[in-house]
Amino acid sequence: MSRWEPNARERLVRAAVESFLERGYDEVTVAEITERAGLTKRTFFRHFADKREVLFAGQDILSRTFAEAIAAAPASATPLEAISAALTATETTFGPDHREFARKVQAVVADQSDLRERELLKRAKLRAAMADALRARGVPDPAASLAAEIGGLAFTTGFARWVAPANERGFGEVAREALSELVEATTKLG
Amino acid sequence: MSRWEPNARERLVRAAVESFLERGYDEVTVAEITERAGLTKRTFFRHFADKREVLFAGQDILSRTFAEAIAAAPASATPLEAISAALTATETTFGPDHREFARKVQAVVADQSDLRERELLKRAKLRAAMADALRARGVPDPAASLAAEIGGLAFTTGFARWVAPANERGFGEVAREALSELVEATTKLG
Repeated sequence: MSRWEPNARERLVRAAVESFLERGYDEVTVAEITERAGLTKRTFFRHFADKREVLFAGQDILSRTFAEAIAAAPASATPLEAISAALTATETTFGPDHREFARKVQAVVADQSDLRERELLKRAKLRAAMADALRARGVPDPAASLAAEIGGLAFTTGFARWVAPANERGFGEVAREALSELVEATTKLG
Repeated sequence: MSRWEPNARERLVRAAVESFLERGYDEVTVAEITERAGLTKRTFFRHFADKREVLFAGQDILSRTFAEAIAAAPASATPLEAISAALTATETTFGPDHREFARKVQAVVADQSDLRERELLKRAKLRAAMADALRARGVPDPAASLAAEIGGLAFTTGFARWVAPANERGFGEVAREALSELVEATTKLG
């Protein structure tokens, strides 16, 4: 018998988020998540260290997507053009059919201080991944760190606008808009 | 008998850091810290939630110092001038006699991944405090968030330079130097 389960990771994530929303994050056990997903606890722990990590499963993919897009930007691209390309590349992860799910994850995270802290930490790692990718392109510090911080703010602002109830625009569009506003703001800091 | 102990907080912090350096963070117990400081566990827990928080005791004071200095900057000060004033105000906390102690704290934190994560989180809260203080001055977003991120980078870079083994310059000087470099870098991001 094969231990491979099709889409196990995604099934676990979706089952966990639905359970968290229905019964509250604190109340839900790993056993409940695996039962809902029709999978074993063994499979769960092959994919995640604990129930908290299920909510942040996408962040590692995101860090890789950002780093790869920055590396793949044309040699002539400025640091901010490379960041803009990375925000655009994120649309493969944050497509329109993912938005409703992302809203649910946000609702669970917003409700718990330890989950909000975990998110802050993951965002710090995302910025570090961007800064490293920029340095690998030959961008010196502090420009690499600074561009990564601006990219992180554009990501955070763009994400908040993307999951906002009334929004219908794509992630790339709102994130690039946020980046433009930040670039404009750099000229007004005195 | 009075329960008030002179300098209890500072004595506990110093005893903890010396013990962490001598025996390793994981090995040291709260009982050991309080014995070294000549205080009770009861006193320890009036000041700190656990042994980890001892290492970050200064960060709340720092957030307040930053926020108050930003609030006290002249009405005519630009966002970056207010940030610069906050970095200068930090010299009351990071005086020359505090540098050797700060180096010890850094050595303990650098050695443990969960302490480094805690530090990232505290720095995120420091940036949030700066952004809030700027908004209270009427600085709109995204300028307030952006200036706070730049201030956070200046703080982190300045702190690393200040605790560097060979450094003899004051915290305010190295932090303002880092801020100037960041401002210069904003013009080269493309």
